[in-house]
Amino acid sequence: MLIGGIEAGGTKMVCAVAEVSERAFAECGGRVGEDVKILERVSIPTEKPETTLGEMVAYFKKWKVQALGIGCFGPVDLNRRSNTYGHITKLAWQNCDMVGTFEKELHVPVGFDTDVNGAVLGEVTWGAARGCESAIYITVGTGVGIGVYCNGGLLHGLVHPEAGHVLLTRHPKDTYKGHCPYHENCVEGLAAGPAIEERWGDKAYKLVDRKEVWELEAYYIAQAVVDYILAYSPEKIILWGGVMHVEKLFSMVRGKVQELLNGYVQHPMIQENMEGYIVPPALGDDPGILGAVRLGMLEYENKSR
Amino acid sequence: MLIGGIEAGGTKMVCAVAEVSERAFAECGGRVGEDVKILERVSIPTEKPETTLGEMVAYFKKWKVQALGIGCFGPVDLNRRSNTYGHITKLAWQNCDMVGTFEKELHVPVGFDTDVNGAVLGEVTWGAARGCESAIYITVGTGVGIGVYCNGGLLHGLVHPEAGHVLLTRHPKDTYKGHCPYHENCVEGLAAGPAIEERWGDKAYKLVDRKEVWELEAYYIAQAVVDYILAYSPEKIILWGGVMHVEKLFSMVRGKVQELLNGYVQHPMIQENMEGYIVPPALGDDPGILGAVRLGMLEYENKSR
Repeated sequence: MLIGGIEAGGTKMVCAVAEVSERAFAECGGRVGEDVKILERVSIPTEKPETTLGEMVAYFKKWKVQALGIGCFGPVDLNRRSNTYGHITKLAWQNCDMVGTFEKELHVPVGFDTDVNGAVLGEVTWGAARGCESAIYITVGTGVGIGVYCNGGLLHGLVHPEAGHVLLTRHPKDTYKGHCPYHENCVEGLAAGPAIEERWGDKAYKLVDRKEVWELEAYYIAQAVVDYILAYSPEKIILWGGVMHVEKLFSMVRGKVQELLNGYVQHPMIQENMEGYIVPPALGDDPGILGAVRLGMLEYENKSR
Repeated sequence: MLIGGIEAGGTKMVCAVAEVSERAFAECGGRVGEDVKILERVSIPTEKPETTLGEMVAYFKKWKVQALGIGCFGPVDLNRRSNTYGHITKLAWQNCDMVGTFEKELHVPVGFDTDVNGAVLGEVTWGAARGCESAIYITVGTGVGIGVYCNGGLLHGLVHPEAGHVLLTRHPKDTYKGHCPYHENCVEGLAAGPAIEERWGDKAYKLVDRKEVWELEAYYIAQAVVDYILAYSPEKIILWGGVMHVEKLFSMVRGKVQELLNGYVQHPMIQENMEGYIVPPALGDDPGILGAVRLGMLEYENKSR
């Protein structure tokens, strides 16, 4: 069976088609490369909705996919009882009916969630959090986003988690005003890529050797991670995004998380195995697109019941 | 059918017996006072485990309850696959096997969760969050605890949420060192009852007319509530505990939450109906004990399958 996936971002739409075996359905996803094979992926620039949606529809029509999953930039409406379910609710694509458009054009089940919820689903199904009953996926890139898996599903609610905006304590020596137009001290505004660039006057990858840059970065990211540990108590934390490609940052964040928790949460994963607790994705660059395929699979099962 | 409930606290154990109708099982709890009636409740002082457990066992044996639910002070082990499932894991009652003791003595199903998870379950089943798909219960008393309901169940994980320890930004004029031995700036350490008493030199109820006390309190509680809104995106927030009995604090917290969110989360509940979003419990002083009864009902159903 062919299942489509879209990782919908503000600059590009990654579209992929996966061949999915029966065993993948029967065995909670099966194995990537055996039961689930990505046959092709294309990247379509995000322009006006009417243009870009048309190109994506044509792509999936050509492949005759039997279901589609979308992990989408947000904010989005995930409330199935709402009139605007499956819409993007802000920014340039405001009121764009993602789910409705593909359902109408392709006549197949369309799964839909946030991009980060897609990514955590990919890692729970096939990656670093396989077998975990709860996990979170944190991306620190042009923004900070958090996807949450718990109680057998992805976390929604009144809207969906926006934990990239949790409030932090500023470093006493950090005089940078922050990059978030809403909050002067949220993790996205203080620690995402644009904040690094604006604070230090250069792109992150050019600052790799400046110790103070990454110490401050770890100081902020660790505060947020501590809040997530205390709030969600996840079994696994997958930390990724462009900023986390600076390799030494991982051990700095882990160390700072230990220091801030200060022994309060007693569990071997935290006391003895922080390297196995806060980890990069096991699916490399693919948790988002594979998570989108899984969203399509789940919606197919849901509609077949 | 008779179902027992225990609200297990560090100073007292509230034990109750409820008469529960068949309709209560069939209709997600039915109605309090009709389908679920508390026949008696007693309060047993929390002393040594062997003494207090013996008294509780005798009480429920007398009533011949057919199931029991326990909402317990923590930390506790909620992992059903663990050897110490149902144990308290710290403090004076360390390693006390709550579930095992009652199962062995009463030979009935025993439901078990944290006290705050019990309370949110009570409010989701019969109270202010009835009909909600997600809700949180925050208590600000001698400590700060958070119970979380989402995806059709109570939130557990590696351990369980400990969101009373999320880290806050200190008020620049607050020189008080904080009351938490682990964290110098968590909400429990800065805003719970003992912190108020130590900072201002008097019991909270004697400080009711001192504006600066409650402004600082709202400043801290609102920061935590904002982090919870961003992390959990709950459909309803039930805020309670001894400190919240100071009535004016509710509107101060709501106002400060608005100010800190600063329009970022777009939803009518937040923009237009904060009075209906952050609310006291609808079950008065009973969310904890009724939630414990509900834990017993759910375990009964679980074991009957």
